[in-house]
Amino acid sequence: MNKVTQDQIKVQKIGTSKIDQVDFNKLLFGKDFSDHMFECDYIDGKWQNPTIRPFGPLTLSPAAKVFHYGQAVFEGMKAYKDDNGKVFLFRPDENQKRINKSAVRMAIPEFPEALFFEALHKLIDLDRDWIKPGNGNSLYLRPFVMATQAGVSASPSDEYKFMILMSPAQAYYTGDVRVVIAEHYSRSSNGGVGAAKAAGNYGAQFYPTNLAREKGFQQVIWTDSDEHKYLEEAGTMNVFFRINDTLITAPISDRILDGVTRKSVIALAEKEGIPIEVRPVLVSEIVAAAKNGTLKEIFGAGTAAVISPVSAFGYKEDVYELPSTDGGYSTKFKKALMDIQYNRSEDTFGWRYEI
Amino acid sequence: MNKVTQDQIKVQKIGTSKIDQVDFNKLLFGKDFSDHMFECDYIDGKWQNPTIRPFGPLTLSPAAKVFHYGQAVFEGMKAYKDDNGKVFLFRPDENQKRINKSAVRMAIPEFPEALFFEALHKLIDLDRDWIKPGNGNSLYLRPFVMATQAGVSASPSDEYKFMILMSPAQAYYTGDVRVVIAEHYSRSSNGGVGAAKAAGNYGAQFYPTNLAREKGFQQVIWTDSDEHKYLEEAGTMNVFFRINDTLITAPISDRILDGVTRKSVIALAEKEGIPIEVRPVLVSEIVAAAKNGTLKEIFGAGTAAVISPVSAFGYKEDVYELPSTDGGYSTKFKKALMDIQYNRSEDTFGWRYEI
Ligand SMILES: Cc1ncc(COP(=O)(O)O)c(C=O)c1O
Ligand SMILES: Cc1ncc(COP(=O)(O)O)c(C=O)c1O
Repeated sequence: MNKVTQDQIKVQKIGTSKIDQVDFNKLLFGKDFSDHMFECDYIDGKWQNPTIRPFGPLTLSPAAKVFHYGQAVFEGMKAYKDDNGKVFLFRPDENQKRINKSAVRMAIPEFPEALFFEALHKLIDLDRDWIKPGNGNSLYLRPFVMATQAGVSASPSDEYKFMILMSPAQAYYTGDVRVVIAEHYSRSSNGGVGAAKAAGNYGAQFYPTNLAREKGFQQVIWTDSDEHKYLEEAGTMNVFFRINDTLITAPISDRILDGVTRKSVIALAEKEGIPIEVRPVLVSEIVAAAKNGTLKEIFGAGTAAVISPVSAFGYKEDVYELPSTDGGYSTKFKKALMDIQYNRSEDTFGWRYEI
Repeated sequence: MNKVTQDQIKVQKIGTSKIDQVDFNKLLFGKDFSDHMFECDYIDGKWQNPTIRPFGPLTLSPAAKVFHYGQAVFEGMKAYKDDNGKVFLFRPDENQKRINKSAVRMAIPEFPEALFFEALHKLIDLDRDWIKPGNGNSLYLRPFVMATQAGVSASPSDEYKFMILMSPAQAYYTGDVRVVIAEHYSRSSNGGVGAAKAAGNYGAQFYPTNLAREKGFQQVIWTDSDEHKYLEEAGTMNVFFRINDTLITAPISDRILDGVTRKSVIALAEKEGIPIEVRPVLVSEIVAAAKNGTLKEIFGAGTAAVISPVSAFGYKEDVYELPSTDGGYSTKFKKALMDIQYNRSEDTFGWRYEI
C-alpha cells in the first residue's frame, strides 16, 4: 500500500507557515486550511502533474462542468496524533476504494491507488505540525475530484482535477443532537447516487435540513423515498439503534453510504459479543420501542463526528426523548474507536495506518 | 417585466471581439462563448456588484462549497434572431421563475427578477452579433447560481455567484434519437430534487447514459424509482407519446422538471384541438402500443433540442422501431414553436419577448 508511483509529485513549499494565525482551541469545522494542498489533473486521458503547493485559489472557466452538472465526488478522513507525536490515519484504504467507487457512479475516471497514498504521505508529512495531539483533535482530510472541462452541454467532462485539502478539527458536534425522521423529503432512491459521496447528494439535503432546524432538530434521519417506512441514514452519518441490548442498523444498498465508521462499529460489536442486526429498520418499530421504553439509544457514526449520541427524535407530531447514554453503547464505541485512532489501544483489526 | 433596478450593472467591454475566431457553421453545443458574461455576488445577505465583463476565468477557493456539495442550479434559454435582425427570447419569465424555484429547493437565495431581466437585456444587447438569423441558429443562454463560500462542512453556503454565460448554437441533435427505458437506474424520487434544475441531477445521469450509449442509445427515458413502471422524462427533455391521434405526457411532480417546451406543446395541442392527456404513462401501455402499431410517435421537448423525434426505443431485451415522423405531431409542433421563436407567425400566446 505504501508503494510509490513513477509519477514524481512536484512539491512547492510555502514561504511562511500560516499556522500561527490559527487558534486551535476555537476551530470551526472545515474553515481553516493547512499550509499545503495536493492537486493532480486528468487531461488527455491520464492523471498528470501531481503537485503539492501552498493552499490557494484555483482558476477555472465559468463553464467548468462541475458548476453546471455537479460532476464531483469527495471523501472525508482524519489524521490523528498520539502523545508521542506519531501520526495515524484510520482505514485509509477504505476511503481510497470508496472515492473510486463514487467516481465510477459519477462517470469520473478512477484515481490511482498508489498516487493517492503517496500524496497523503507527502502532504501530511509537510503539514505535520497542523495535527495536534489530544482527544478529539485531528487534521480533517478532504480528497475530492471535480469536472473541470469548459462546456455547457450535459455530458461527462473530459478533464478533471483531483485535490486533497486539509483542515484542522476539534470535535464535530457540540451538545445534544436532536434528529427528525423524514416524512416527506428524501435523500436518495434505488438506482440513484445515494451510495456515492457525490457532491449533489449533500446540497440536496440543505433545504430539508434547514426546515428541520427551524423546528429545533439538527439533523434529519432519512427514510426510503417510496414509503418513508424504513430508516436509512443521516446526512453525514450512518445510524444505529439500540433496542434492549441489541444494536440494529440498516443494510448497505445503493441508497446508503457504506460508512467506514459504521463497518468499524459492526466489527467492534461482533468482537465484543454485542448482539447486532444488520437489517431494514422500520420507523414503526423504533417509535414503538421509544414508547414502551425498550429503545435505549440512537447514535450516528461517521468520520467527522465519530459517534454522535442522539438525545431525542421527532416523528410526525411527537418528540421522543431518549435516556442519557452515559455508559451506553455509544460511549463504549466512541472510546474504543478513539483509542485505536489515537494509538492508545492494541490495533487487533489492523485499522491504524502510520504516516 | 422590463423595469430596471436601482443596482447599476457595471459594464466592462471587451477590447477586441472574438467573434471572428468562431465558425458559426460548425458549432459544437456549449463549447464557444460570446464576448461577455454577467456576474453578481451574494455576500452579507444581499446580491451585489452586478457586472458585465469579458468572458473569462473565475478565481475560487478550492474549498468553495459548489465543488464539495453541488449546491448549484442553472437554467437554459435561447435568443433567436428574425430575418430583420430583431432578437427575441421565448417565455423568459418561465426561466426566471424556475431558477428561483430551483434555488429555494437547494437552499440558495433567490435572484431578483428585475435584475435578471436587466442583465439579460444588457448582455444580449452587447453580444447581438453573436446571434445569427436562420432556422435552428440561436444564442444559448446559461444563467446559473453556485455556492462560493470556502468551507468543507456540509451546510449551506453564505456566499453565492449568479452568472449568465452565452454560447452560440445550431440545432442540438443531429440524426436519429434512439432511447432506452430505464429499468435499473433512476434520476429522481419523491421528495428529492428532480423538479429542480440542480447541478447534481445531471452529473448523476452520466454513468447510466454512458451504459445506454454503449448499447446504441443516445438517451435514457427515466422511469419512477420505485417500480420502473411509469415513464417520466429524458435527461434534458420532457417526453410525449402519441397513441393513435392522442398525445400523452406525464404530469409534473417533484420528480420531473416543469419544462417550458412541454407546457408550450400542451398549449399548442389544446389550441389545435389535438387530444392531449396529461397523466401517468405506463411503460406497459407504450410497449403494447408499439407492438400493436398504435404507437405513432415519441418525441422529446426541451429548449436545447426544441422537439426531438425518437426513432426507436429499447426496453428489456427488445428494440421497438417507430414509424418515420415526417408530417407527424413532432414536425408540426417543431414548426409551430420555431415559427413563434423566429417571429414568423403570430404570437397569440404572448410568448415572444423582444430584446
Ligand atoms: C451520507 C453519509 N453517510 C455516512 C457517512 C459516514 O461515513 P464514514 O464513517 O466513512 O465517515 C458519511 C460521511 O462520510 C456520509 O456522507
Ligand atoms: C431534466 C430536464 N427535463 C426537461 C427539460 C426541458 O425543459 P425546457 O423545455 O424548459 O428547456 C430540461 C431542460 O431544460 C431538463 O433539464
